Amino acid sequence: CFLNALDEVKPAFGVHEEDLHDCVKGGIINYSPKIHQVIKRVERDIEQLRHSENFNFSSLLLYGPSGSGKTALACQLALDSKFPFIRLLSAKDMVGMSETAKVQHIDNAFRDAYKSPLNLLVVDDIEALIDYVPIGPRFSSVVLRALMTRLTSNAPDGRRLIVIGTSSNYSLMKSLDMLNCFNDEVCVNNVTSIDELCAVVDKGGFFRGIEKDNEDEIRRGDEDIVKRIHTNLLSIF
Amino acid sequence: CFLNALDEVKPAFGVHEEDLHDCVKGGIINYSPKIHQVIKRVERDIEQLRHSENFNFSSLLLYGPSGSGKTALACQLALDSKFPFIRLLSAKDMVGMSETAKVQHIDNAFRDAYKSPLNLLVVDDIEALIDYVPIGPRFSSVVLRALMTRLTSNAPDGRRLIVIGTSSNYSLMKSLDMLNCFNDEVCVNNVTSIDELCAVVDKGGFFRGIEKDNEDEIRRGDEDIVKRIHTNLLSIF
Amino acid sequence: CFLNALDEVKPAFGVHEEDLHDCVKGGIINYSPKIHQVIKRVERDIEQLRHSENFNFSSLLLYGPSGSGKTALACQLALDSKFPFIRLLSAKDMVGMSETAKVQHIDNAFRDAYKSPLNLLVVDDIEALIDYVPIGPRFSSVVLRALMTRLTSNAPDGRRLIVIGTSSNYSLMKSLDMLNCFNDEVCVNNVTSIDELCAVVDKGGFFRGIEKDNEDEIRRGDEDIVKRIHTNLLSIF
Amino acid sequence: CFLNALDEVKPAFGVHEEDLHDCVKGGIINYSPKIHQVIKRVERDIEQLRHSENFNFSSLLLYGPSGSGKTALACQLALDSKFPFIRLLSAKDMVGMSETAKVQHIDNAFRDAYKSPLNLLVVDDIEALIDYVPIGPRFSSVVLRALMTRLTSNAPDGRRLIVIGTSSNYSLMKSLDMLNCFNDEVCVNNVTSIDELCAVVDKGGFFRGIEKDNEDEIRRGDEDIVKRIHTNLLSIF
Amino acid sequence: CFLNALDEVKPAFGVHEEDLHDCVKGGIINYSPKIHQVIKRVERDIEQLRHSENFNFSSLLLYGPSGSGKTALACQLALDSKFPFIRLLSAKDMVGMSETAKVQHIDNAFRDAYKSPLNLLVVDDIEALIDYVPIGPRFSSVVLRALMTRLTSNAPDGRRLIVIGTSSNYSLMKSLDMLNCFNDEVCVNNVTSIDELCAVVDKGGFFRGIEKDNEDEIRRGDEDIVKRIHTNLLSIF
Amino acid sequence: CFLNALDEVKPAFGVHEEDLHDCVKGGIINYSPKIHQVIKRVERDIEQLRHSENFNFSSLLLYGPSGSGKTALACQLALDSKFPFIRLLSAKDMVGMSETAKVQHIDNAFRDAYKSPLNLLVVDDIEALIDYVPIGPRFSSVVLRALMTRLTSNAPDGRRLIVIGTSSNYSLMKSLDMLNCFNDEVCVNNVTSIDELCAVVDKGGFFRGIEKDNEDEIRRGDEDIVKRIHTNLLSIF
Ligand SMILES: Nc1ncnc2c1ncn2[C@@H]1O[C@H](COP(=O)(O)OP(=O)(O)OP(=O)(O)O)[C@@H](O)[C@H]1O
Ligand SMILES: Nc1ncnc2c1ncn2[C@@H]1O[C@H](COP(=O)(O)OP(=O)(O)OP(=O)(O)O)[C@@H](O)[C@H]1O
Ligand SMILES: Nc1ncnc2c1ncn2[C@@H]1O[C@H](COP(=O)(O)OP(=O)(O)OP(=O)(O)O)[C@@H](O)[C@H]1O
Ligand SMILES: Nc1ncnc2c1ncn2[C@@H]1O[C@H](COP(=O)(O)OP(=O)(O)OP(=O)(O)O)[C@@H](O)[C@H]1O
Ligand SMILES: Nc1ncnc2c1ncn2[C@@H]1O[C@H](COP(=O)(O)OP(=O)(O)OP(=O)(O)O)[C@@H](O)[C@H]1O
Ligand SMILES: Nc1ncnc2c1ncn2[C@@H]1O[C@H](COP(=O)(O)OP(=O)(O)OP(=O)(O)O)[C@@H](O)[C@H]1O
Ligand SMILES: [Mg+2]
Ligand SMILES: [Mg+2]
Ligand SMILES: [Mg+2]
Ligand SMILES: [Mg+2]
Ligand SMILES: [Mg+2]
Ligand SMILES: [Mg+2]
Repeated sequence: CFLNALDEVKPAFGVHEEDLHDCVKGGIINYSPKIHQVIKRVERDIEQLRHSENFNFSSLLLYGPSGSGKTALACQLALDSKFPFIRLLSAKDMVGMSETAKVQHIDNAFRDAYKSPLNLLVVDDIEALIDYVPIGPRFSSVVLRALMTRLTSNAPDGRRLIVIGTSSNYSLMKSLDMLNCFNDEVCVNNVTSIDELCAVVDKGGFFRGIEKDNEDEIRRGDEDIVKRIHTNLLSIF
Repeated sequence: CFLNALDEVKPAFGVHEEDLHDCVKGGIINYSPKIHQVIKRVERDIEQLRHSENFNFSSLLLYGPSGSGKTALACQLALDSKFPFIRLLSAKDMVGMSETAKVQHIDNAFRDAYKSPLNLLVVDDIEALIDYVPIGPRFSSVVLRALMTRLTSNAPDGRRLIVIGTSSNYSLMKSLDMLNCFNDEVCVNNVTSIDELCAVVDKGGFFRGIEKDNEDEIRRGDEDIVKRIHTNLLSIF
Repeated sequence: CFLNALDEVKPAFGVHEEDLHDCVKGGIINYSPKIHQVIKRVERDIEQLRHSENFNFSSLLLYGPSGSGKTALACQLALDSKFPFIRLLSAKDMVGMSETAKVQHIDNAFRDAYKSPLNLLVVDDIEALIDYVPIGPRFSSVVLRALMTRLTSNAPDGRRLIVIGTSSNYSLMKSLDMLNCFNDEVCVNNVTSIDELCAVVDKGGFFRGIEKDNEDEIRRGDEDIVKRIHTNLLSIF
Repeated sequence: CFLNALDEVKPAFGVHEEDLHDCVKGGIINYSPKIHQVIKRVERDIEQLRHSENFNFSSLLLYGPSGSGKTALACQLALDSKFPFIRLLSAKDMVGMSETAKVQHIDNAFRDAYKSPLNLLVVDDIEALIDYVPIGPRFSSVVLRALMTRLTSNAPDGRRLIVIGTSSNYSLMKSLDMLNCFNDEVCVNNVTSIDELCAVVDKGGFFRGIEKDNEDEIRRGDEDIVKRIHTNLLSIF
Repeated sequence: CFLNALDEVKPAFGVHEEDLHDCVKGGIINYSPKIHQVIKRVERDIEQLRHSENFNFSSLLLYGPSGSGKTALACQLALDSKFPFIRLLSAKDMVGMSETAKVQHIDNAFRDAYKSPLNLLVVDDIEALIDYVPIGPRFSSVVLRALMTRLTSNAPDGRRLIVIGTSSNYSLMKSLDMLNCFNDEVCVNNVTSIDELCAVVDKGGFFRGIEKDNEDEIRRGDEDIVKRIHTNLLSIF
Repeated sequence: CFLNALDEVKPAFGVHEEDLHDCVKGGIINYSPKIHQVIKRVERDIEQLRHSENFNFSSLLLYGPSGSGKTALACQLALDSKFPFIRLLSAKDMVGMSETAKVQHIDNAFRDAYKSPLNLLVVDDIEALIDYVPIGPRFSSVVLRALMTRLTSNAPDGRRLIVIGTSSNYSLMKSLDMLNCFNDEVCVNNVTSIDELCAVVDKGGFFRGIEKDNEDEIRRGDEDIVKRIHTNLLSIF
């Protein structure tokens, strides 16, 4: 089944695989039909780019709340694509860089992403990449512009690139005119229902701060438990 | 017919042609009377500049929604003009430059554009050139001022220049007093009706994410399909 | 008549005449009593400075909509003054300069303008000089202050200077306390009526985008034509 | 009992212990059930990180009013953890540093915190670390972003790290999206009731500006005394 | 009489006299009782500083509309003081300086002003000194702070200094807490009534743009004339 | 009596005494019970720090209107403390310094203030230290943060330090969270009543701009006189 296919880690030929593996330590759990649809959608976009006669550049935005699995999904599906070049572009690698150095770093990532015939670039956590802070708001418009220009430029002849972006702030992406820079967008929701929660538990997740004796309360949907679970959801996986 | 004339790529004598070709990979599709009028208008302005006794500098703004074909039209018509010098001024070539370097780059483009007797410069995506970000809003007023000064300065004796600007944010152009800097302005609309859509399909376009079986739904104007088409319109061409 | 006097280009003794000539390519057309009054007013101020026993510095602001002829008038009247030193201070010469360099440039213009016994300086398009952008608004307060200080400082003994400033944003000049820096101010209006328009046509102007067959429509005041004329007015001259 | 356990200073094996000791000069007084619960909660999170099979990074925010004991608690509990590496990251050590140097300093603290198998880092007074000033508001978004990126990055294989953050401005943490960066959060309240106050006094605290004769008034809850106590609370300990 | 005493230019012993003379080319005209009172008030403050046993630093703000004579009065009264050191601190001398250089320049002016036993410093046009622009508003807070610190610092032993400041923006001075920095303040009004105007005319002033035949209209208070006079008032003197 | 004790200048052992003496030229006049209470309060805080077993760092804010004597009181009481190290930290010594240099300067002052067993530091006019300007408002958040961090850090072992801060803007201190940085706060009011005024006069003060004959009017509370007195109050002392 699809889930099994995802759970076993497939070999890929590109560089930078380790960064991607780091973001999906335990593999993806296919805990609900919704998550299944998300996976199918991203796979379709990847396949279209691979075979298209009409375009050689494509982009897709994964958005949804913090901790919902956007980065994990993007990285797992990148690994599963078997594209010769896959890479994760992440704010973690740019801490302390000047704006100029960041633009250079991003530009190099795209340049590298045009070196193989088939390339996939995960542009992770766009808010973090542009140093977004809600108060103000503040962000690096220089880095933003570099990203936008790259996302709206065609691939060179003979190269194909798909960019998977992630963001937990959809309305920000809209306000920044970033949505116009992506060809497709997919929402990744949080685990919200008790059923989904139990599906995760069944598949081997556990909850910090929730004793085994609480399992019944979870299934009964005890409000206090659910609230604690929500707060701790980030630490499920 | 006019369409055929446009579709076959005409030779031009200037440098920088490749940049322009990159923006109109598949040629322009004349899918509606509206697009025909736009083309006619731009051609008239180009002809006026070529033959005018009264002025040697002219400028024209193409505005309209993102993906409506402004850049493609500007570049195709530039190529069709057969002017000895044609050039595309684009934000893509200025990523990571300092403000000062950008001003220099723009100034050089105009300087180059005065080297032949007949010159055409596409100033593409003015928002991108001035690093415009809607939140704030932010933009480089230094670059903006350089553009404005150039757009309101006469050509040197014996030189003729027409500038075709593009922008997907007309109200911004207005707020920035940019409209005063152009002698003419033309709106380029998106494909909006089903008829226009079918005209595109007929002429060889196809839709990503829309199976062939959906063709009937498109023609029936199915709302969900139309919405998906709009989102994907950028990838038609 | 006055018009003839203006139309023939008079010799002047100062440097920088070419810059000024560039701004009045075809000479000034005296198309209405209003424009005649403006010319008379500026000439009076120039004469007062020339002969005054009470002051040796004077300044005058020409304001009015974009394209109404402020720069052309200032330059033509400067040329007609036969002052030994006349100069145009324009944003065009300062593109890409740092703020400091701009202040230096402006200061040098004033310094030069005190080298002859009788001097005239056109400070053109003050908005452009101070890098004004309506959004924000933004402008260089350093350059503004340099201008203001120069406009409120006396001429050295034995020197006379009249400054003619131009601006298409009167309310901005007011908000910036710039009006206090000028001794006189004159409004230059656009061609607004059909009669004025015909006067211009009669005197040799022509309209881009308006075929000869439209002449009757212009005289009938056809609304659409008038609107197109307004948009194109900048290109009449 | 628990209190005794805390009051005696336990030996720890890490470096930087002195900084931590400096913040809990007289040991923690367990003056109420509320403070007991806080201690238990932090200890549970520390234990979970120590033994967890599912995660190797965890973070906890202590928030509450100024002077309520957040720093003291964090440091005492760090000392009590007996983790081989414990460290205090404090604004005091960054006075006068440039933003870049601060980011470097923070990054080094995290890097150091990954050198032992079991590590604990106190990120004290986040407002101070990001140079927050309520007027404006102002803060270093560069430093903030460095902190956020570190707080949302996994520990390297074979290393475990728990971060205890402190902040006296919970709503700021929320506005900055900082709460999403912590796995757990605990409120540390001030001494508010007379009973709690007396518990502190009983355990050896004394009040500056309150004579011994006022002791009865304290117990009677005299309003003026309570107000003076509140102002002086910071100096109890 | 007092007027005569002022009109004849008195010798003074300090340096920088020429700068001061430049600002009162034709001497002060004592055209009304109001202007007489202003002069008396400033003279009193100067005398108090000269003889005081209780203080050796004093400051006085002259405020009022642009062109009302603040600078002229300050400079004439400085010249009349016969203080061994008198100096004009003016924005004109600081055009194009960096903020740091401006602070240095101001600081040097004060330092120089402490070199003689009796010193007088005219701090002219405080708005201009701090590069104030009403839009924003903008100003150099660094220069402002340098001025404020100097205005609130005592003179060294054995030195006496009186500072005469001028400003045409009283409410700004208030908003900036500048009023707290002056020991005294005096308003200098514009010529407002026809009588005052005639007094000026009688004493030898003339009006640009007003022919001799208009004299009757002035005396009749013709509204249009008065308005023109107001606009031109700056050029009376 | 207390007054006498204050009026005679007592020897002190620290460095920097001269700066402090400069701020209390004529000694403190104990003109009312209110001023007496202020003095007593500050003295109590100084004594507590000297003898405390529980803390070795203490801070106190003197706030109140400009000219009310905060600086004078702080300096006189510092001199009276006979602490081996007393110092005045003042904006006057930092004019023209860069932000970095200011932070260094402040930090050095605190470092020096930890060199003796018993130390007293007057942090004068906090608004001036942080370059506060009400319009904006503007201030140096870097300097502010340096001050705050120092005010919330403990003294090293074996050292005692009391900081006396002054500010004439209490609400600003509150908005900046500065009040949390002080252990105690005392209001210093202006001379407001006629009785207080007469007490000052009796003790040897005199009023600039008020003739001896006005003494009766002062005592009668004549409104105009009182207003003039208020304006001139700064110059009483
Ligand atoms: N479907 C899933 N199956 C297994 N693990 C998952 C799944 N979704 C999320 N996770 C795990 O949950 C944790 C949080 O997910 P992830 O970091 O991908 O979220 P995110 O949406 O990128 O959050 P953020 O917006 O904060 O970056 C990770 O450890 C990830 O591996
Ligand atoms: N009339 C047309 N015929 C053929 N292709 C077209 C036409 N209009 C647009 N396209 C194609 O559609 C794509 C988007 O067009 P283009 O980039 O010119 O749009 P745009 O209006 O410049 O958008 P933006 O505002 O985002 O820059 C391009 O690949 C372009 O070649
Ligand atoms: N009265 C006139 N006679 C002849 N030509 C004129 C007249 N007025 C304007 N022009 C011409 O019209 C064009 C625009 O005029 P000009 O540049 O002087 O306008 P402007 O008021 O300075 O505009 P802007 O505010 O945009 O600088 C110029 O080519 C100028 O020579
Ligand atoms: N429960 C406690 N037992 C003993 N001392 C305490 C306790 N709580 C606080 N203190 C002492 O009170 C003083 C203030 O506490 P601390 O600095 O930890 O507060 P804080 O919450 O970190 O304040 P801030 O938000 O200002 O940093 C310190 O000297 C600390 O040792
Ligand atoms: N009472 C007066 N007698 C003679 N000349 C005067 C008198 N008042 C002003 N003037 C003259 O009027 C002109 C403008 O005065 P001045 O520059 O002193 O005004 P100001 O109040 O300083 O204006 P601003 O606020 O613009 O600096 C000067 O030439 C000055 O010499
Ligand atoms: N009680 C007093 N006895 C004697 N002199 C005093 C007294 N209070 C103030 N002064 C004197 O009044 C003048 C102003 O006082 P000071 O500078 O201390 O006021 P401040 O409150 O610090 O004002 P600011 O807020 O402007 O700094 C000084 O010369 C000072 O010596
Ligand atoms: Mg993520
Ligand atoms: Mg485009
Ligand atoms: Mg012009
Ligand atoms: Mg703390
Ligand atoms: Mg003046
Ligand atoms: Mg003070």
